[in-house]
Amino acid sequence: MPEPIIIHHNFERADAQHDAPHTAPKPRHVVESQQFTVPLLMELFDRSRLMERVVARGGTLDYQNRIMASLFYSPSMRTRFSFEAAMFRLGGRVLSTEQASAFSSEINEEEVEDSIRILSGYSDVIVIRHHAADGAKRAAQVSTVPVINAGDGNGGQHPTQALLDLYTIYRERPINGLSVAFIGELDKGRTARSLAYLLAKFERVKIFFVSPPELQMKPDILAYLEEHDVRYELESDLQRVIGEADVVYQTRIHPDRVHDRDRTLGRFAIDSAMVQRMKPDALIMHPLPRTAELDKSVDDDPRALYFRQAKNGLFVRMALLTMLLEGS
Amino acid sequence: MPEPIIIHHNFERADAQHDAPHTAPKPRHVVESQQFTVPLLMELFDRSRLMERVVARGGTLDYQNRIMASLFYSPSMRTRFSFEAAMFRLGGRVLSTEQASAFSSEINEEEVEDSIRILSGYSDVIVIRHHAADGAKRAAQVSTVPVINAGDGNGGQHPTQALLDLYTIYRERPINGLSVAFIGELDKGRTARSLAYLLAKFERVKIFFVSPPELQMKPDILAYLEEHDVRYELESDLQRVIGEADVVYQTRIHPDRVHDRDRTLGRFAIDSAMVQRMKPDALIMHPLPRTAELDKSVDDDPRALYFRQAKNGLFVRMALLTMLLEGS
Amino acid sequence: MPEPIIIHHNFERADAQHDAPHTAPKPRHVVESQQFTVPLLMELFDRSRLMERVVARGGTLDYQNRIMASLFYSPSMRTRFSFEAAMFRLGGRVLSTEQASAFSSEINEEEVEDSIRILSGYSDVIVIRHHAADGAKRAAQVSTVPVINAGDGNGGQHPTQALLDLYTIYRERPINGLSVAFIGELDKGRTARSLAYLLAKFERVKIFFVSPPELQMKPDILAYLEEHDVRYELESDLQRVIGEADVVYQTRIHPDRVHDRDRTLGRFAIDSAMVQRMKPDALIMHPLPRTAELDKSVDDDPRALYFRQAKNGLFVRMALLTMLLEGS
Repeated sequence: MPEPIIIHHNFERADAQHDAPHTAPKPRHVVESQQFTVPLLMELFDRSRLMERVVARGGTLDYQNRIMASLFYSPSMRTRFSFEAAMFRLGGRVLSTEQASAFSSEINEEEVEDSIRILSGYSDVIVIRHHAADGAKRAAQVSTVPVINAGDGNGGQHPTQALLDLYTIYRERPINGLSVAFIGELDKGRTARSLAYLLAKFERVKIFFVSPPELQMKPDILAYLEEHDVRYELESDLQRVIGEADVVYQTRIHPDRVHDRDRTLGRFAIDSAMVQRMKPDALIMHPLPRTAELDKSVDDDPRALYFRQAKNGLFVRMALLTMLLEGS
Repeated sequence: MPEPIIIHHNFERADAQHDAPHTAPKPRHVVESQQFTVPLLMELFDRSRLMERVVARGGTLDYQNRIMASLFYSPSMRTRFSFEAAMFRLGGRVLSTEQASAFSSEINEEEVEDSIRILSGYSDVIVIRHHAADGAKRAAQVSTVPVINAGDGNGGQHPTQALLDLYTIYRERPINGLSVAFIGELDKGRTARSLAYLLAKFERVKIFFVSPPELQMKPDILAYLEEHDVRYELESDLQRVIGEADVVYQTRIHPDRVHDRDRTLGRFAIDSAMVQRMKPDALIMHPLPRTAELDKSVDDDPRALYFRQAKNGLFVRMALLTMLLEGS
Repeated sequence: MPEPIIIHHNFERADAQHDAPHTAPKPRHVVESQQFTVPLLMELFDRSRLMERVVARGGTLDYQNRIMASLFYSPSMRTRFSFEAAMFRLGGRVLSTEQASAFSSEINEEEVEDSIRILSGYSDVIVIRHHAADGAKRAAQVSTVPVINAGDGNGGQHPTQALLDLYTIYRERPINGLSVAFIGELDKGRTARSLAYLLAKFERVKIFFVSPPELQMKPDILAYLEEHDVRYELESDLQRVIGEADVVYQTRIHPDRVHDRDRTLGRFAIDSAMVQRMKPDALIMHPLPRTAELDKSVDDDPRALYFRQAKNGLFVRMALLTMLLEGS
């Protein structure tokens, strides 16, 4: 094992050597993905690259005295571990609850505000997953420390997932001009929603929403895309678009939500036959966990990015934590 | 972010420069609030002040190699996080279980002793919340490391809550001569019971117990107060005492425990109208979480101390941990 | 509190000064106890001794930048705390889930592989307790970081328990030539199974399996012992062997699994009367938790080793973590 590397970070100074866009105002909280501008995204991604190098060298940063609170009202082991590992790799500490709704004596939903007011006194940054679609926003309104939305209610957002998704794409190719196919149960898909907001910030992006008609992307996202002049198509036949997409972003469809279950799920699944019809340099992504919609036979295809995507969560969350803790 | 401040503490030496009372023998375990003498409380509060300064400077102490075990048989996110944040701010580590009764293979209640014997080998201090009123005491009897009672069964105690409550008062004004109104379901109220024991150590304190008659404070506490010459009154009408109290300590009443529910709960609630009848320098306290018994409209009143009270839990628990770990 | 001691370990060099056997190839994962050779066991025990000294001095090692993931699909507070305390005493960090099956959105059992692929990106070593007998093996097959089996399904293994059991014996006397009585529900007993595999590596060991006939040790272990020329006897009367055993290894019998419950359980229980019939230097062991099969009156007998046994888990797991993290 190499000697521990402690990097005394000074991003302000490092940023000063960059172009003007890098002086983008830093967010205080992360609630919705659309609050990120392109310059801010680029700064985040620069930092994420640095974090990759820190981790590769077995190093850490000097956040020894900083505490992150992981406040998960709905459990999510993967997302929670990703945030907590990020804080550890920075050198920090973690207060953690796997299921706040069961393990606190919180009396009703109204009280997330009181919990946050109290936790603000115990921690330097709060990561919250709340079952209500406005849980993270309500938390941010009363918190005296930065709040990060780690996924809110159905049809809500999961902005850090979108940030790591975009970073994963960014590491592979330019985002401007990309065509992206989102597949799955898009009306309730937090990850697709959050990533669509981010893609709309870039130039000449085209989005295919591929879904059974009754589960299609909701009008609020479509209106946002139209406002931002993003081309999109609603599609119910994966076969018709699979050969055109640069990024194939697969998500799960809950079997209970479709008629003629086996046939419908099969039509939206990605298996080795479907992969053969993709562009030779397509990027196959998935927020995980997966079931039958993404066959294990795809795992060895060099285009399969989803495990690297999950790992990128570590770097992007490290970067995001440094950004938020800096200003606070 | 400033450079981390590592303070190599040496309280023994610091204490030696104080008055004689500060050489009060340190407790080995914290099971009941009445085990604290006034000199010991003053030493604890001096240390708590120091902890406030350490945290304000973003510093830490040198407990890097010390491990605290958080052993919660009944979940309590707030209390657990307060202890764990305290240990982190000292530089230490934390073993944590959110609900030992569900997540251990412990076979029956008899076995808390065996669990403690084993955990004594893995940690340097044990924080226990147990559902039985004698859970913490039984733990202390077999532990080879200090044990802290983080709240035991109904009608039991919650001594660290009482310590932080008293510290919150102490930070505002002299405790001798205070009049304190406890409101709520006092027969089962661990926090009121534990704080009453502490108040009895001071001079000229007067206590109002304000409760529906069937939920009044139990005779054991009243007997203790009489022994210590503490004046008290049992009252069922909040209106009659609200203008006299220096400290208004509100607690929850479980709706199922009263007749004529809405009317009864309303009579014991604190809202902005009730606040207007309080002394201009009254201290409004609550152990949290709260429901309707403490209206949110009170939050902005400068007399509302309950969020600061919660934050003080951090400093008092840091101080307490240093005291217990020192001798061990 | 003494100054923290940071020991920059260099076991490779230390090992070079030992005899040849100590250059035994280190395991990448720990899935089954039988993968340990005697030289590897001796190296592990040497390290464990060192760890005892590190802990006794209040020291730590330099694993500050290393992360262990505790992935418990079935809860086990004691085993989890033992591993986590071990990682903390090394200076490292811990990601922890008390019950992955409830707190992840993992969809079915198939997916342990995906979880491990993701966690491999967030941690440096994974400790897994899985309900399926092949859970740890499946995890090891896909993990890019070392995996440690912390107990798998009924009739599976619990190799680190066996390692700490053997270390506990080794600290007391030579293992060659020992007679060991395993008592309890041996067909499902992970700990007895795992320790039997290890004992078979030594010379002139004799094993008594003492169990109601219907709960006797399974043929796979017996075949393994025969292959390794280990003498064993199947016995249903504890009285007949209790005076012959150097090590009395008691385990629990679930009351539901026997007929004539009280009488049967009583026949296999160890109480002060039974202890009187043991050798004067017998070692009484138990993996804990215990119920009536090991009476509390035995606790004060100098032959009772079970709490020291539990504490040894800390040292052996520290040693094991250093071994696995070194190569990785």
